[in-house]
Amino acid sequence: MDRRQKKRGNRYAPTNFSKRFKIMAITEIPTPAALIDTARMLRNINTMQTRMTSLGVKLRPHVKTSKCVAVVQQQIRAGASGITVSTLKEAEQFFAAGVTNILYAVGMVPSKLAQAKALRDKGCDLKIIVDSLDAANAVVDFGRSHAHVLEVWMEVDTDGHRAGLKPDGDELLGVGRALRDGGMTFGGVMTHAGASYELNTPEALQAMAEQERSLCVLAAERLRAAALPCANVSVGSTPTALSAEHLEGVTEVRAGVYVFHDLVMVNIGVASTDDVALSVLTTVIGHQKDKGWALVDAGWMAMSRDRGTQKQTRDYGYGQVCDVDGRVIDGYTLTSANQEHGILSRADEVGGDITHRFPVGTVLRILPNHACATAAQFPEYVAVGATRAETWPRFYGW
Amino acid sequence: MDRRQKKRGNRYAPTNFSKRFKIMAITEIPTPAALIDTARMLRNINTMQTRMTSLGVKLRPHVKTSKCVAVVQQQIRAGASGITVSTLKEAEQFFAAGVTNILYAVGMVPSKLAQAKALRDKGCDLKIIVDSLDAANAVVDFGRSHAHVLEVWMEVDTDGHRAGLKPDGDELLGVGRALRDGGMTFGGVMTHAGASYELNTPEALQAMAEQERSLCVLAAERLRAAALPCANVSVGSTPTALSAEHLEGVTEVRAGVYVFHDLVMVNIGVASTDDVALSVLTTVIGHQKDKGWALVDAGWMAMSRDRGTQKQTRDYGYGQVCDVDGRVIDGYTLTSANQEHGILSRADEVGGDITHRFPVGTVLRILPNHACATAAQFPEYVAVGATRAETWPRFYGW
Repeated sequence: MDRRQKKRGNRYAPTNFSKRFKIMAITEIPTPAALIDTARMLRNINTMQTRMTSLGVKLRPHVKTSKCVAVVQQQIRAGASGITVSTLKEAEQFFAAGVTNILYAVGMVPSKLAQAKALRDKGCDLKIIVDSLDAANAVVDFGRSHAHVLEVWMEVDTDGHRAGLKPDGDELLGVGRALRDGGMTFGGVMTHAGASYELNTPEALQAMAEQERSLCVLAAERLRAAALPCANVSVGSTPTALSAEHLEGVTEVRAGVYVFHDLVMVNIGVASTDDVALSVLTTVIGHQKDKGWALVDAGWMAMSRDRGTQKQTRDYGYGQVCDVDGRVIDGYTLTSANQEHGILSRADEVGGDITHRFPVGTVLRILPNHACATAAQFPEYVAVGATRAETWPRFYGW
Repeated sequence: MDRRQKKRGNRYAPTNFSKRFKIMAITEIPTPAALIDTARMLRNINTMQTRMTSLGVKLRPHVKTSKCVAVVQQQIRAGASGITVSTLKEAEQFFAAGVTNILYAVGMVPSKLAQAKALRDKGCDLKIIVDSLDAANAVVDFGRSHAHVLEVWMEVDTDGHRAGLKPDGDELLGVGRALRDGGMTFGGVMTHAGASYELNTPEALQAMAEQERSLCVLAAERLRAAALPCANVSVGSTPTALSAEHLEGVTEVRAGVYVFHDLVMVNIGVASTDDVALSVLTTVIGHQKDKGWALVDAGWMAMSRDRGTQKQTRDYGYGQVCDVDGRVIDGYTLTSANQEHGILSRADEVGGDITHRFPVGTVLRILPNHACATAAQFPEYVAVGATRAETWPRFYGW
C-alpha cells in the first residue's frame, strides 16, 4: 500500500470517478444522486441467476431497468444468456458494448424495421416480436423487399394486461404460418405476466407464474402441433420469476427490476427493503417546523413521478427514508414532492423534533417506489462498494 | 427557389436536423418523440410577456420546464428580464449560453455554495435563496471565509404548500439582519403559490394571486420598515400569473409551464387544449380488439409517470390523443401505460372500431398531463413550424 492509499484509509477511493467531482466520502457526493449499493445489486443478480439455473432455464435480463453497461456486464458475468430490450436504442447501445443476443420485446412496427435491419446487418442477433397478422405481414413484406430474413417471435397474452395473441386462438397459428410462408425465421413465443404486479401473496404469485408458464407453453405446443417448430418459450416478470414452483416447457425467463428491486417489489413480497440496491442520495435543505416537515433536494424530478405503492398495502409516498448508510428510518417517507423539493415527514404523526432529527445539510438515502422510473431520471449512477465508489453512465431516450 | 427546395414542396425542410435522421414529414420522425408546436409556443410566450408588461412587472421565466436554450432564447427575445432555475446545472448550462441574470429558486445548502461561487466568479449574476436563519448563517459563514459577497433572496411562504419564511414572522427580519450584518447583499423576497395548482375557477385563482401578491409585498414592507431595503419582490406560478388582477408592489413574476402548457393547466382553466405546445408523437403498434385498445409506442417512459389530472375535474389518464396534426380526437386518451406501451382507448365506452380507427402504423400526438415531467424524459425536442422542423437539444440531471 503506497502512502496515498494509506492516507485515504477506508474512505472511497476516487478511482474512475467522473472529472466533475472527486469523492472521498458519500457525504461529499453532489445531491441528488442515484446510488447503487453494489453488494446488494450483486446479491440480487446472483439470487435470480441461481434460481433460474436450478429451474433449468436461461435468464435473459431486461436491461430497461438499468440502461447501464456496467450493470449488464455483471448480469452476463453471472450467467445471463442474452438481454431483453424495450427500445432499439437500448439494442444499439448494448450491441456497441459487445452484447449480441438481444430480444426487442415491444411489438414491431414497419417504421422501425430499417433500424432493426441495420443492427442485424452489423452482426447483432436481434429478434423482434409481433402480436397480430397485420404486424407479421408487414415484417414479411419488409423482409422480402429487402431480401433479409428477420428472426421473429410472437407475443402471447397470458394475463390480459397488455399486448399479445391469445394462446388458444386461431390468429396464433395464422401468424406462425405467415412468418414461415413469408420466409422469415420463426423463433418462438414470449409473454409477460405484468398482472403479477397487482398481487401480494405467495399463493397468488405462484398461481400467476403457473398461468404465465402454462399458457405460454400451450401456445408453443399448438404451434408445434401445426408443424411450426417453436424453439424458444420465454416468460417472465420479476414477481413470477421469483415465485414459480417449476418452469417445465419454458426455455428462458425475462426479468428486469430484480437487479435493483424497489418498494413496489417489497409490497408484492418478493424483496425486502434490505434488497433495494438503488436509492436517491439527498440533502436536507430546510424545514417547516410546525408541520413536521424537512425539505430535501430530491423532488419528483429525482424520484420520478412514479407512485406505484399508492394502491398497494403500504403507501411509501415518494420513497422510504434511510440514513446515509442505507438503514431504514422507520416511519419517515417523502410524503409529497415538488419538482426539486421533497417533503420528508412522518406519515403517521407530526413530530416536533424534525429540525433536530434532520438538520440542514443532513445526507440521506431514499428508496424508490419504482427503480426503472427513478433510475431514468439520472444521467449516471454512483456505484458504491465496500472500498470504493465509481460513476457508471447510463443513457435514456429513443 | 432552387430546384431542391421546389422538390420538397410544403414538406418539412431537413435544415438543422440531427444527423441521426433526415425528416421530410412528421410521419417520418422516429417515435416516440417530444414535439414542440412552435407557433403555439411563441403565442404562449407572447401572451405571458404582454400580460406582465401591461401589469408593470418584469418576467423571469422558470426554465426548468424546457431545459432548452432554443426555447429560452425565444423567451428572452420576447422581453424576459432574466431566468429562474431549479438546479445549479440549469444555471451552468444557461450561463454558458449567455444568460447572466439567474435566480436559483431552491433553498441553498452549504454543500452547493462552492458551485454557486464558481459561477459567480465567472461573471454569472447568480442569486441564491434561503428560508431560515440557519441557512442564512451558513451562507454568511461561507461568504466570509471565502471573502465573497453573495446576493441572497429570501423565500416567503404565502400558501403553506412548501418552503418559506412566514411573511408576518420574526424570523423574516432576523434573516434580513443576519445577511446584512454578515456582509451579504440582501436582494429581495420571492414566493411561489404552488397551491394555485389545486384551484380551477377564475375567482379562486384571482384570490390566490392576490394572496401571493399581498403576503409577499407585506414581507417586503416589513423588511423595509426594519431598515432592510428590499429591491426585488418576486412572485409567481403560471396559474396566478395568468389570473392576477393587479400586481402592485411586485417587481417581477416567475412562471414556467406556460411556455408549453399542459392538461393540468387546461383543467385549472388557464389554457385550452389548443394552447398545449408540447406533445408526444407516437405510433400505433398493435391492438386488443375485444377490449377496444390500440397499443402505442409511448408508454410512461415517454409520457412520464405524472398523473396530475387524476384528482382534477377531468382525468386524461396518461394523455389526450390528437391526430398527427395536433387536432384533439375527443374521448380518446391513454387510459393506461407500461414502460414502453401506452394503451389508447375511449374512457367512456369500448368501441368496436379500434383497429380501423387506428391501424398499426398510425401516427398520433398525445398531449401530456404535465409538460415539465414529460419533456424531462427526452434528450431532444423536435420543434415543428409551418415550414420546417428542427431538433432542439435539452439537458437533464444535476
